[in-house]
Amino acid sequence: MSEIILGKNQYGKAENRVVRIYRDTSRHEIHDVNVSTCLRGDFSAAHLRGDQSDVLPTDTQKQTAYAYAKEHGLAGIEEYGLALARHFVRDVGPVEAARIEIDEYAWQRAVVDGAEHDHTWVRSGQEVRTAAVTVDGTGEWVVGGLKDLVLLKSTGSEFAGFLTDPYTVLEPTHDRVMATSLVAQWRFGSTTGIDWDGVYAGVKAQLVKQFAEVQSLALQQTLFEMGKAALTQHPEIVEVRLSAPNKHHFAYDLTPFGLDNPNEVFHADDRPYGLIQATVTLDDAPPPGPAWEPQLRWL
Amino acid sequence: MSEIILGKNQYGKAENRVVRIYRDTSRHEIHDVNVSTCLRGDFSAAHLRGDQSDVLPTDTQKQTAYAYAKEHGLAGIEEYGLALARHFVRDVGPVEAARIEIDEYAWQRAVVDGAEHDHTWVRSGQEVRTAAVTVDGTGEWVVGGLKDLVLLKSTGSEFAGFLTDPYTVLEPTHDRVMATSLVAQWRFGSTTGIDWDGVYAGVKAQLVKQFAEVQSLALQQTLFEMGKAALTQHPEIVEVRLSAPNKHHFAYDLTPFGLDNPNEVFHADDRPYGLIQATVTLDDAPPPGPAWEPQLRWL
Amino acid sequence: MSEIILGKNQYGKAENRVVRIYRDTSRHEIHDVNVSTCLRGDFSAAHLRGDQSDVLPTDTQKQTAYAYAKEHGLAGIEEYGLALARHFVRDVGPVEAARIEIDEYAWQRAVVDGAEHDHTWVRSGQEVRTAAVTVDGTGEWVVGGLKDLVLLKSTGSEFAGFLTDPYTVLEPTHDRVMATSLVAQWRFGSTTGIDWDGVYAGVKAQLVKQFAEVQSLALQQTLFEMGKAALTQHPEIVEVRLSAPNKHHFAYDLTPFGLDNPNEVFHADDRPYGLIQATVTLDDAPPPGPAWEPQLRWL
Amino acid sequence: MSEIILGKNQYGKAENRVVRIYRDTSRHEIHDVNVSTCLRGDFSAAHLRGDQSDVLPTDTQKQTAYAYAKEHGLAGIEEYGLALARHFVRDVGPVEAARIEIDEYAWQRAVVDGAEHDHTWVRSGQEVRTAAVTVDGTGEWVVGGLKDLVLLKSTGSEFAGFLTDPYTVLEPTHDRVMATSLVAQWRFGSTTGIDWDGVYAGVKAQLVKQFAEVQSLALQQTLFEMGKAALTQHPEIVEVRLSAPNKHHFAYDLTPFGLDNPNEVFHADDRPYGLIQATVTLDDAPPPGPAWEPQLRWL
Repeated sequence: MSEIILGKNQYGKAENRVVRIYRDTSRHEIHDVNVSTCLRGDFSAAHLRGDQSDVLPTDTQKQTAYAYAKEHGLAGIEEYGLALARHFVRDVGPVEAARIEIDEYAWQRAVVDGAEHDHTWVRSGQEVRTAAVTVDGTGEWVVGGLKDLVLLKSTGSEFAGFLTDPYTVLEPTHDRVMATSLVAQWRFGSTTGIDWDGVYAGVKAQLVKQFAEVQSLALQQTLFEMGKAALTQHPEIVEVRLSAPNKHHFAYDLTPFGLDNPNEVFHADDRPYGLIQATVTLDDAPPPGPAWEPQLRWL
Repeated sequence: MSEIILGKNQYGKAENRVVRIYRDTSRHEIHDVNVSTCLRGDFSAAHLRGDQSDVLPTDTQKQTAYAYAKEHGLAGIEEYGLALARHFVRDVGPVEAARIEIDEYAWQRAVVDGAEHDHTWVRSGQEVRTAAVTVDGTGEWVVGGLKDLVLLKSTGSEFAGFLTDPYTVLEPTHDRVMATSLVAQWRFGSTTGIDWDGVYAGVKAQLVKQFAEVQSLALQQTLFEMGKAALTQHPEIVEVRLSAPNKHHFAYDLTPFGLDNPNEVFHADDRPYGLIQATVTLDDAPPPGPAWEPQLRWL
Repeated sequence: MSEIILGKNQYGKAENRVVRIYRDTSRHEIHDVNVSTCLRGDFSAAHLRGDQSDVLPTDTQKQTAYAYAKEHGLAGIEEYGLALARHFVRDVGPVEAARIEIDEYAWQRAVVDGAEHDHTWVRSGQEVRTAAVTVDGTGEWVVGGLKDLVLLKSTGSEFAGFLTDPYTVLEPTHDRVMATSLVAQWRFGSTTGIDWDGVYAGVKAQLVKQFAEVQSLALQQTLFEMGKAALTQHPEIVEVRLSAPNKHHFAYDLTPFGLDNPNEVFHADDRPYGLIQATVTLDDAPPPGPAWEPQLRWL
Repeated sequence: MSEIILGKNQYGKAENRVVRIYRDTSRHEIHDVNVSTCLRGDFSAAHLRGDQSDVLPTDTQKQTAYAYAKEHGLAGIEEYGLALARHFVRDVGPVEAARIEIDEYAWQRAVVDGAEHDHTWVRSGQEVRTAAVTVDGTGEWVVGGLKDLVLLKSTGSEFAGFLTDPYTVLEPTHDRVMATSLVAQWRFGSTTGIDWDGVYAGVKAQLVKQFAEVQSLALQQTLFEMGKAALTQHPEIVEVRLSAPNKHHFAYDLTPFGLDNPNEVFHADDRPYGLIQATVTLDDAPPPGPAWEPQLRWL
């Protein structure tokens, strides 16, 4: 007869909206993040008997996230995430592993009469920078990334020569709009001695460059070239994962109105969308361990 | 010197909004779904060289989803998902595995002058029913589920005796509001001969019952009892996964106004929220295979 | 030479998430609302000189919303809104008028083993009940309403005989799916002696009944019949406003696959959508005064 | 006995997602808009009898929106909106007035190796530009605007000297974070001979400049200075309306952990939020007519 047992479990505080202002000089700095904490270990007593003696409250995790923004600073999300994760594993007895997931919202300095302002910013919506940090007794893993990077090219994209079956009605094309809202995550080979901001800027530049320059025969091909370029330029990273909705822009049929439409007027459709996902990796990348085990997208 | 290679990849059409009306008699039936399809296999030619000859377009997957709603019917999301997944694996050469993820929106018949109407419905927002079907050359897996089931109890929930550290300020309580927006998914041990609707109704009833009746010492404990009851009642399922945000309701401090507040007035906070996640499983459950490998939450 | 002056202005606290539990017996009651407060009057000193001496802080408005849920109770949103609005106008010197907008989220008692539970609820997503209360020195106005009432009929809807022009390609139809997410608001002729819950239930029943039963030649006609039935049944109300997106369900073209589709398989499209808006009123309705001047949709 | 009559009504097609690419040279241009059309007139036959003979279908309005992007071009949203509105009033018999509401999403050219790319863009999320155009038999009105302009200043904001009552617990402050997600709309005094893009850039610059430079004693004061500066710099506009949520950033209490917090660590709260709304206008502005009568925010 089967027995019912507890399997994998984790818990934490999600979406703490921490804003850190540095105001040591009159030229302030801002870091605006959404940080989620997650603890792993043997919490079976809580599940099986309601015994909380090994459970550090999620409220405490929240307090710690805010306190660490002062105690340890919040100048970069990777280091802040590592500090939090190391603390939970090192200082809280029952915690065997910690997972910290962070989104950072970018702000640009307001430009007033041609000059950047000291303490006023305009939120830049271009993309959200992300980090996912995991620490356990055996190691540390950092995954950098971005999401909501919306890209569009108005030519230089084809889709032809594809497999057909009785349900295929799509016509091949050699010139279409290609657009996506890119999610990219890259795994670092190490967690020390990294120029996090430099890698971020460099990887993003490569992603944009390949999207722009590759004559795309398929979104799959473009994604592979993006990942390959990022890995080639940045030996600090060993694996890139990319998830790209194909945000369809359909050339509008204007023939009923006696108008031709040589790829000038499009309908931007919401749903459905293609969804292309790929991993590009070094063949000798170290094993990922728990680097990709999520908190927020667990179910 | 490392080589850059293609790792795990998949592609499909996400969020096809298929609505199927059965109108064989004057009393119509409705099934309203959001279906996402995903194909897996060796698509390296597309990634490495832009060669689409093994790529069935996502547009074709969309056409198939709509066509199958007529050809094979859409009376239940599990069977519809299985039909689609089997088709892609069986009939499309290069496809080695297919993943179909479906949300179903519930409609209640409009009540007019006390009677249920034949062809008019009101959308019921209580919860969304989900299914995730995976088929490959070695087997079939179905995961049933629900999401957005928002539950609240105004007493019968405690949180005390927890671990404390220097960052802990939370006070223990023996009477609080407990609320969540539950995500639950259950893995079936087989994909044939199942009364899908019966299991759905039965599991949902158990989840609600345990949430209501367990004197909760922790959300963890409540989740475990939910999963245990579902597994006990339904031998068709072998594993339950639960993800439960702790939607905090804070008793509002009315003392500045000379009012006491014995758990009568609360502020329902948006963020942050606790997030408790657990798996409850049979100790001899068959291995999950690809049952839990997602399309939509891949990154 | 023109002078720059202050025009219409108002301020308040938006979206206070107040939850009120009545627990006088073991069978608890719940009211879950999102309340927004708005004050009007001569606040020119604050705008022109930054002088706050006539400005009651929005934080104070928040405190009052929570305190009144205890002091005056929150058993119905219309009476709660009236109590708040009267307080601000009567008790806060500079306030000449107050506007209170409230959404109420419905909860159904959890059913456990066939019986309704005393203190556990499941959130009902069917629709959100709304109220907008305005009080000034000359009178009081209450607008009841609902939003997010999603309705669909699978037959009994036509659209034909319409005006055509050179941009018209639409074909007339005598059988289509009609669906909407209804917003309805009704103005009361008085603010005392009203059975608010009774009117709500009665108006909602009429809206649903007319949607179901009218053989619709146009969404416009259906809306007018809805408003007319509500006014006919409920002399307490003098005006009904309706806003109805036409949520298009397009019969899917299955002919490429050798399948016919006699209104059985539809694509539920997101955007664009038709938007039909109408007012149905008594010819001798009292003037609306500020009843329809909003806070949240001001811009 | 009262008679039930049709009151104000209107109908249209909402949220057409038109994307216009100009590709006359290898350096393409893009305009990406969400356009909603709305017709007004005597449509009582449709409401009272279901007679559509005066109703131009919303589908036709959609076709026209796409066709006009080609026929008349879509280089600026104000001129495009005017062209559409004039067409409906001039060319469609029963239409007495037309309202066109447009959101424009901004794209920045992708920068590749330091140079702007010819046909690739990155979506800029900084703000959405808006226009609302109304045309009837007596005149034309254009309201320009923006929304989702998220601004934050980390000092230079006070709130003190405010009115207090028994529900007031807020402490005055002379240094706080001030943040908002600004909605601004400005009414033009004429619809011909306007440098629409120049006014947009100029007004936006003034809004940002005043937000940054005014030592704010209240958000009300800041809004008035914003509007005043816009009107002073741009004689083309006669009225500015501003709606500003006060996005609260609460200095986090770190004293339990032995840390001081001199405005360095904040919690960015979601709800509730203050909501400050004001009109700044010329004292001799021409009457607004239907300039502010909305389609999308009607209810």
